[in-house]
Amino acid sequence: MNEKTTTGSEPRRSVGLWLIGAHGSVATCVAYGLSGLRQGLLAPTGLVTEIAPVSSLPLAGFDEFVLGGHEVLRGDLSRSVTDLSRHGILHPDLVAAAHEDAAAYEAEVRPGLLDSTEVGGGGLDPASARLGAASPQEQIERLAGDLIAFRKAHDLERVVVVNLASVEVAWSIQPGWNTLEGIDQAIEGGAALPASTIYAIAAIRSGCPYVNFTPSLGASPGGVRELALEHGVPHCGSDGKTGETLVKTVLAPMFAARGLKVLAWQGYNMLGNKDGESLSDPARRASKISNKDEALREILNDPSVHTGVGIDYVPSLHDWKTAMDYVHFEGFLGARMSMQFTWSGSDSALASPLVIDLARLADLAASRGERGEMVQAACFFKSPLVPAGNAGSPRQSHDFAVQHRAFLDYVNGVLTGS
Amino acid sequence: MNEKTTTGSEPRRSVGLWLIGAHGSVATCVAYGLSGLRQGLLAPTGLVTEIAPVSSLPLAGFDEFVLGGHEVLRGDLSRSVTDLSRHGILHPDLVAAAHEDAAAYEAEVRPGLLDSTEVGGGGLDPASARLGAASPQEQIERLAGDLIAFRKAHDLERVVVVNLASVEVAWSIQPGWNTLEGIDQAIEGGAALPASTIYAIAAIRSGCPYVNFTPSLGASPGGVRELALEHGVPHCGSDGKTGETLVKTVLAPMFAARGLKVLAWQGYNMLGNKDGESLSDPARRASKISNKDEALREILNDPSVHTGVGIDYVPSLHDWKTAMDYVHFEGFLGARMSMQFTWSGSDSALASPLVIDLARLADLAASRGERGEMVQAACFFKSPLVPAGNAGSPRQSHDFAVQHRAFLDYVNGVLTGS
Amino acid sequence: MNEKTTTGSEPRRSVGLWLIGAHGSVATCVAYGLSGLRQGLLAPTGLVTEIAPVSSLPLAGFDEFVLGGHEVLRGDLSRSVTDLSRHGILHPDLVAAAHEDAAAYEAEVRPGLLDSTEVGGGGLDPASARLGAASPQEQIERLAGDLIAFRKAHDLERVVVVNLASVEVAWSIQPGWNTLEGIDQAIEGGAALPASTIYAIAAIRSGCPYVNFTPSLGASPGGVRELALEHGVPHCGSDGKTGETLVKTVLAPMFAARGLKVLAWQGYNMLGNKDGESLSDPARRASKISNKDEALREILNDPSVHTGVGIDYVPSLHDWKTAMDYVHFEGFLGARMSMQFTWSGSDSALASPLVIDLARLADLAASRGERGEMVQAACFFKSPLVPAGNAGSPRQSHDFAVQHRAFLDYVNGVLTGS
Amino acid sequence: MNEKTTTGSEPRRSVGLWLIGAHGSVATCVAYGLSGLRQGLLAPTGLVTEIAPVSSLPLAGFDEFVLGGHEVLRGDLSRSVTDLSRHGILHPDLVAAAHEDAAAYEAEVRPGLLDSTEVGGGGLDPASARLGAASPQEQIERLAGDLIAFRKAHDLERVVVVNLASVEVAWSIQPGWNTLEGIDQAIEGGAALPASTIYAIAAIRSGCPYVNFTPSLGASPGGVRELALEHGVPHCGSDGKTGETLVKTVLAPMFAARGLKVLAWQGYNMLGNKDGESLSDPARRASKISNKDEALREILNDPSVHTGVGIDYVPSLHDWKTAMDYVHFEGFLGARMSMQFTWSGSDSALASPLVIDLARLADLAASRGERGEMVQAACFFKSPLVPAGNAGSPRQSHDFAVQHRAFLDYVNGVLTGS
Repeated sequence: MNEKTTTGSEPRRSVGLWLIGAHGSVATCVAYGLSGLRQGLLAPTGLVTEIAPVSSLPLAGFDEFVLGGHEVLRGDLSRSVTDLSRHGILHPDLVAAAHEDAAAYEAEVRPGLLDSTEVGGGGLDPASARLGAASPQEQIERLAGDLIAFRKAHDLERVVVVNLASVEVAWSIQPGWNTLEGIDQAIEGGAALPASTIYAIAAIRSGCPYVNFTPSLGASPGGVRELALEHGVPHCGSDGKTGETLVKTVLAPMFAARGLKVLAWQGYNMLGNKDGESLSDPARRASKISNKDEALREILNDPSVHTGVGIDYVPSLHDWKTAMDYVHFEGFLGARMSMQFTWSGSDSALASPLVIDLARLADLAASRGERGEMVQAACFFKSPLVPAGNAGSPRQSHDFAVQHRAFLDYVNGVLTGS
Repeated sequence: MNEKTTTGSEPRRSVGLWLIGAHGSVATCVAYGLSGLRQGLLAPTGLVTEIAPVSSLPLAGFDEFVLGGHEVLRGDLSRSVTDLSRHGILHPDLVAAAHEDAAAYEAEVRPGLLDSTEVGGGGLDPASARLGAASPQEQIERLAGDLIAFRKAHDLERVVVVNLASVEVAWSIQPGWNTLEGIDQAIEGGAALPASTIYAIAAIRSGCPYVNFTPSLGASPGGVRELALEHGVPHCGSDGKTGETLVKTVLAPMFAARGLKVLAWQGYNMLGNKDGESLSDPARRASKISNKDEALREILNDPSVHTGVGIDYVPSLHDWKTAMDYVHFEGFLGARMSMQFTWSGSDSALASPLVIDLARLADLAASRGERGEMVQAACFFKSPLVPAGNAGSPRQSHDFAVQHRAFLDYVNGVLTGS
Repeated sequence: MNEKTTTGSEPRRSVGLWLIGAHGSVATCVAYGLSGLRQGLLAPTGLVTEIAPVSSLPLAGFDEFVLGGHEVLRGDLSRSVTDLSRHGILHPDLVAAAHEDAAAYEAEVRPGLLDSTEVGGGGLDPASARLGAASPQEQIERLAGDLIAFRKAHDLERVVVVNLASVEVAWSIQPGWNTLEGIDQAIEGGAALPASTIYAIAAIRSGCPYVNFTPSLGASPGGVRELALEHGVPHCGSDGKTGETLVKTVLAPMFAARGLKVLAWQGYNMLGNKDGESLSDPARRASKISNKDEALREILNDPSVHTGVGIDYVPSLHDWKTAMDYVHFEGFLGARMSMQFTWSGSDSALASPLVIDLARLADLAASRGERGEMVQAACFFKSPLVPAGNAGSPRQSHDFAVQHRAFLDYVNGVLTGS
Repeated sequence: MNEKTTTGSEPRRSVGLWLIGAHGSVATCVAYGLSGLRQGLLAPTGLVTEIAPVSSLPLAGFDEFVLGGHEVLRGDLSRSVTDLSRHGILHPDLVAAAHEDAAAYEAEVRPGLLDSTEVGGGGLDPASARLGAASPQEQIERLAGDLIAFRKAHDLERVVVVNLASVEVAWSIQPGWNTLEGIDQAIEGGAALPASTIYAIAAIRSGCPYVNFTPSLGASPGGVRELALEHGVPHCGSDGKTGETLVKTVLAPMFAARGLKVLAWQGYNMLGNKDGESLSDPARRASKISNKDEALREILNDPSVHTGVGIDYVPSLHDWKTAMDYVHFEGFLGARMSMQFTWSGSDSALASPLVIDLARLADLAASRGERGEMVQAACFFKSPLVPAGNAGSPRQSHDFAVQHRAFLDYVNGVLTGS
């Protein structure tokens, strides 16, 4: 456990953790998980920031976080809690013990912004619907206002914003969005922008570090990145690397290192949660799949390698994402061989500790005055954001071992003050 | 392809490659594979030394190798060739094209030494049987004599000896063997020593770099390592990391890096070649299995992790080694998840290019004046030998990515002259 | 649901269900499962007797069963309940709702008989220990006394005894046990007999149908079978076919029907419950494995087929038995192909409904005056008992489809009165 | 081996086997396989008609078949032979030994008919292109002419026509095609009809038994079935059940028989041969997938079961079709379990012996005066054709064990003359 959390005499600081998609499965596991950690009911299994030497960083303690968030759907946490309990992910004892913490979080959930490409279904929160009809400028002001009010109400040193909302329909980045002026013009002109980008702008303008755990655009456009540099805000993304892609970026380097020629890599993902339902829509699936393929081409250094990624919505699996991958490869003497794996994991149990890790790391980065893309966090993402000028850098690699080493180099640098 | 092999005007040098277990599947694939590479019939798939930047090292070219070896069984290469063809590993076209090269190799195969724990079966070469009855001193002299005669006959710059013989029954290292004096006394006193160690001593005394691609003891005892330092000979081992263990040492670090707690790791290996037949003997299996388990404990940093390794002889699979592994692990919130993989590869097609790689690397090391354990080669072995005083070094890690990075650091060091 | 259970005006009858191994996982799931079915909290998923046309048989209703049993360990159901809840098999709501029924069952659990080959560990019930020291005759009388007292106390029409105890060390059937006289002599002479056989004799002498759900000997010896015929008692066994073997006996006939030659069938079972712990003892594993192999040889009609069965104790899996099978086969043109499967199921959730099914079927058989081996129940067992003279009968097949058809023929025969 | 093939004194009869798609992989394996069987070079592995008691039927011997066929592409067998050899399916020795037989077959291959929905690529045989432009009536006459000329040239007792062509784009059956008059009108009116149906009509009008081994329409329309009854011709189809669907129809009945509720069944097929290339076209895939799904719904008796079938073209696999299936199911107490399998087989090695079986069985049926749908052959097909009035018959089941039993009942009926 992180010793820093208990250093007695200093005045206790507080850090806000603001979750977009506040009632979803991952956010729910973050809230209940943090409560369980705080109360000593849970071991910090799956938390990268609790492993040495990362755990020696001056990170926010579990009891220093105050939670809030945005949500577009009516209702509360109970639906997610019921589902997660029924499928064996949230233990009834934890649910009972975290009751008060959950209520405090619930009290800080505000109506969110639905992406303009969405058709608001029956469950949409009326205030979210109204916000959707506002101009981009008004939307940003309303969302930023929520963040600022939250910071003030709890006297928070800082608020880290994490995007956990359902993946948006794939937007293409407009050329104008690549500059700060272009983004400003788009906002002022009332042009349509992805909700995730509106959120990112609101966060950055409010001085809040921003973590994009989804494949939505968020802070990816060049203009938003400039904004972050200008406001001195660190940010990272995109798309948490939790399961099949993590395994791919661990295994593919082995084939490359041994000179084994990958002929085909087919991956089939089955999932039954809200994410799966969203991804059963081909328009949303598009961006997700491109993320998953690009890693293999880069690591195998073979732009023509045959790859396939399937994502199927299988409701009975609920949060238990199951992936079956088949790798066909050739070795010496032309011998054709295969490797096949099945990964079966709870999506929320895998993602939620990484959200806590990233909130701590973004808070640390901000406290150290870092700004712009947090390159050290590449190992957490399927499509890590790196500074534009940094294209040839090894940090851009999808190879998990390379990314993880770069992360540890950063950690050691912070610890040794270099 | 390695450019060094074609530098025109320099006088052509020759390097000997001496294979212990000369008629086995792996040695057969080395011989036919080198011939195919030389004739441009095979792509260098699966060869680590043909990947940049390793390929820029001043390595022996494929056409600079002259082959010979020791074998304890009567007969010739034809049985292995027939089996490997029937099971789709050696293509009939390659078999035809390599005919002359194979005959030249065959002409340099000499009777080998059977381990004293073996019961010589009907197929034993009579000269091997006679050698088995000799004293250790006489055995070493006879084997060394073969190496020296081979070097002289072909005017070789150097002879690299590679142990590819069937795994020996597990010997325990006697305390006396840990010093050079103890080894000398054992030899002089006529004490029983593993055949693999006799071979290693013969190679080292003849100034030949020695590669132990098997789990047998070979040069592992401290006294033999001292001998290598004294004779200025580089050596490496033990037990080529070709399949399931390679995958294990690639995947296990992922669990460790993410703080996921491995509860159990069960691995089941099925194989049908001579190696499989040997390992169906529990006494031989013992050492093999201990090698396979130790890597997981080290990487996961958990001496109590539940692991199991099965090795079953399944004749119909012949050279197609198939491994099925099941990993049970725990994540955040106590969620229990699993990963399962099946690896199906030709043992000989995976091992033989690594033998060529190691012969080139050992030749390079010797030409550079390196002596003792080749720590840079750890990524090739299940139980890499490291210098005794080096226990805390990261090079001792079983983590493949760490080993591979150390290897590349060595390569870059050689290339930049540092 | 079975309509027969609710036919109003008839006086309600009661049937005893006596479980040997009363506090084990399977027995616990039988007790809580029956309570859940009775209260309408559970769907009858996994119950063969609830599928048409089986459900039309005049079977005992869920509310007509009264439970009791024998147990050799101290303690009560709570350990099993806690474990099964923690591993997601018993839902906390069901545990709460079945509290009263469980207490009633608990009140009818009596000290059991430990097999004489066991070393009674610290948790042994003292009364069980004392019973173990008694003569076979006394043991039978004590156990039969428990059954008779239970029947009388609850005014039961019949008591069905089901053996769910941990598998015994493999006993070989003594020649003398093949006749009723020989068994009687063994009992009178105080010879050692397997506990499972003592239980079977006690049940049969008390007129109780006996179901052997384990691989222990039970009523298998010829003399005990004669006893059952003489007492007019139906019985069945051995070893419930719940998981991997079920799949094997479904898949193997496909290869046979298509003329595909199975070259090798390797099966690896991992389990972490009490059964797994018992089977980690090679002596117990012996009988289990022979059962699993014999089915393949018979179905494939190939006594020389290469098969392998591994059983490994993997504590973290607890009740979630996981099996990985690899089938290597040859087709036309000598093509070598493979099929591989992974079965991952809760042992207790698979076994317990079959125990309820068999209790109902044994009760029905007794009510119809059937005696001796219940050949119709072959589809429920890994080693189905058939009458001695019946060796050539198709009912002896291990082919699940053949067994299931024979079962449906029996059901239709009962329904049509033929 | 079939004894009937060698009964000496009778005059030797000859049976024609006419393969549509004459140069494809399956047809090539039929031709080389029959030659190998005839010469005693191959064991009859994978042939259903060589297993007792089927082998006792009065079937055509391997040396009684004369081969011919239709093909739309230019070229000859050599491309398929080269591919099948390279991928380890046709052994070089067999290729050499069957050279003469292959040449004789080649001499009897005639230009075929391309389906009108196809765009003829560059490799199209010019005569096939011309035939495609003809009226249906002319097409039928030309194709029938080829069959009749073949029968006459070789003095054949009978010619069995087997459709092995690439799957057509899905056609919907026009209402008019359900009667003989409607079909006649369509032909006379020059309406577009699927090529497979044109072939079927040509075969039936020529008195040739017709086997549809593909998912194309063929003889499925009611009017064509009437035609077969009128001409006294037996026929069967559709779509050979060779791999994943075979396994599905073997496994699914197990879940049904045990009352285990299948929640989801996802199947992913990867293949790299011509069939795979065709199926990478969504329009063709449509009919294939519907066939694969319908079996599960029927067997599980659950129209709402969640199923998914993926078919992906993975060129490197060539003929080695690999399927990965995931079955999610629920048992007693609501326990959620899974079974997963990987099937890896050579499509052509699996299909070709069944083609020989069906040719023999269709020849037998014709010799016995059977007409219309060969219900006994249901076990060979994914979508077995049954007589219209026969909907409630158990023969329509997709359950392989039920189909196989019906087949054996037919065989025993023929053998006993009942």
